[in-house]
Amino acid sequence: MSERGEERRRADPVLAARSPSAARRLIREGMIDGPTQALAAGHLQAALVVVPEADALAFARLCALNPRAFPLLAMSAPGDRALPTLAGGLDLARDLPGYRVIRDGVAEEGERADVSDLWRADLVAFALGTGQGMEAALMAADLEVREVSEAHSPPLYESNIPLIASGAFAGRLWVTMRPFSAGDAIRAIEIAARYPLAHGAPVHFGDPGAIGIDRLSRPDGGVPSRMREGEVPLFWPSTHSAATAIRAARPGLALLNAPGKRLITDLPIDRAWDR
Amino acid sequence: MSERGEERRRADPVLAARSPSAARRLIREGMIDGPTQALAAGHLQAALVVVPEADALAFARLCALNPRAFPLLAMSAPGDRALPTLAGGLDLARDLPGYRVIRDGVAEEGERADVSDLWRADLVAFALGTGQGMEAALMAADLEVREVSEAHSPPLYESNIPLIASGAFAGRLWVTMRPFSAGDAIRAIEIAARYPLAHGAPVHFGDPGAIGIDRLSRPDGGVPSRMREGEVPLFWPSTHSAATAIRAARPGLALLNAPGKRLITDLPIDRAWDR
Repeated sequence: MSERGEERRRADPVLAARSPSAARRLIREGMIDGPTQALAAGHLQAALVVVPEADALAFARLCALNPRAFPLLAMSAPGDRALPTLAGGLDLARDLPGYRVIRDGVAEEGERADVSDLWRADLVAFALGTGQGMEAALMAADLEVREVSEAHSPPLYESNIPLIASGAFAGRLWVTMRPFSAGDAIRAIEIAARYPLAHGAPVHFGDPGAIGIDRLSRPDGGVPSRMREGEVPLFWPSTHSAATAIRAARPGLALLNAPGKRLITDLPIDRAWDR
Repeated sequence: MSERGEERRRADPVLAARSPSAARRLIREGMIDGPTQALAAGHLQAALVVVPEADALAFARLCALNPRAFPLLAMSAPGDRALPTLAGGLDLARDLPGYRVIRDGVAEEGERADVSDLWRADLVAFALGTGQGMEAALMAADLEVREVSEAHSPPLYESNIPLIASGAFAGRLWVTMRPFSAGDAIRAIEIAARYPLAHGAPVHFGDPGAIGIDRLSRPDGGVPSRMREGEVPLFWPSTHSAATAIRAARPGLALLNAPGKRLITDLPIDRAWDR
């Protein structure tokens, strides 16, 4: 690469990371350590869950039984740090900008940029669909996605909807909320339903109390979205529910992507639904 | 039940088996032992694959990597003969009219009506989507599904398209074929694509030789469908591909539903795609 190219890359990693492989390389080299949302635009990003083989069958079953919360895009062979159906030359232990480490159900403080030293021959990685493809479709239909227009992470709430348990993996469904006018809500539901691998249609709309949420202004995670007069809250399942299930099952070791720091795949975002 | 009711039930099991639970009960009692297609109309039917826990993670991964061939609807806990998200009061070892038994990759002759004696504490059951929901949608759109109008099972071919292997589970994709005029083929593709859990859009159309099929008139399974002048063959993935993958992986024991003898679920067929 020319000196000038190198300069520009340092100056604006988002511009330099327009292709998925370039984005993953910059992350691996430590030149990008923030959220992945703006990187490799138009390409599918996935949430990551890694558990030991002894817990992997139960986690796979959790995904099969709760496909709206955990849309399974790919699963690694034990010990393998690649997911060849999603990305070429992938190193799952280094190609995400941040990881959370959970031991016996207890999360380490902070996050790590590299988990190579923790990877074991018995670890199995699961890549899960996120709301990204659905959000892109909503915006393509000129619907306002509030957390995007307000430039913050979506508000997260722990609902009272039980996950369908698989072995010790159990807990409640976490949901994200996006507000719409009644007319836009109808269109949002119609469009989102076409993207089952991006959580699909909402699980609830209207009264937050009906699914155990006290106050929209005080989310359990993320940042509250402003509600405008006459707007209705729509609630979608979130892969964040995996953290709760892992806390309950207490596998010896589990790795998750850090919030907003996802696996960038080579797949065009439209393929998320089709594969 | 009154004597008269009993008489009528014996006279026409299809009429008596209009509800999924009634159909499963009649099957369990041995009063129905034929194909399930006409039973409990409007309800989702699933293909069944059962393997030991030691092979189950690799089989779950095979499904995740080949979702068009193996759309995973549910997975049992080891030893469990129920799939509560699909059907109430289910006994997986008795509620299908026929099972195939495969030991070390070699299929037993014929089929069994009851596999209770073979069920072990380590067996894991997988329910897979079939083409049924997609076929129903094609017919609802007034498209002719040839094997339905000719009242035979669809023709099955072993293509040269490789499955994405998972451990020792590997092999080639088996496909079913349905012929359409060019105009109908376009509509069939558009409609089928909406049903990813019923195999979704075709994997190929036109020249059978391009996917390794020599002669349409000589399928590797099922019954050939008549092609009319100007018609184009459309090819869809088939769960029959599981039999090939099991032959390759040679688990100590595997159970499959016998051809056409499927698991009748309580879910309306439209939920197949949504859950």
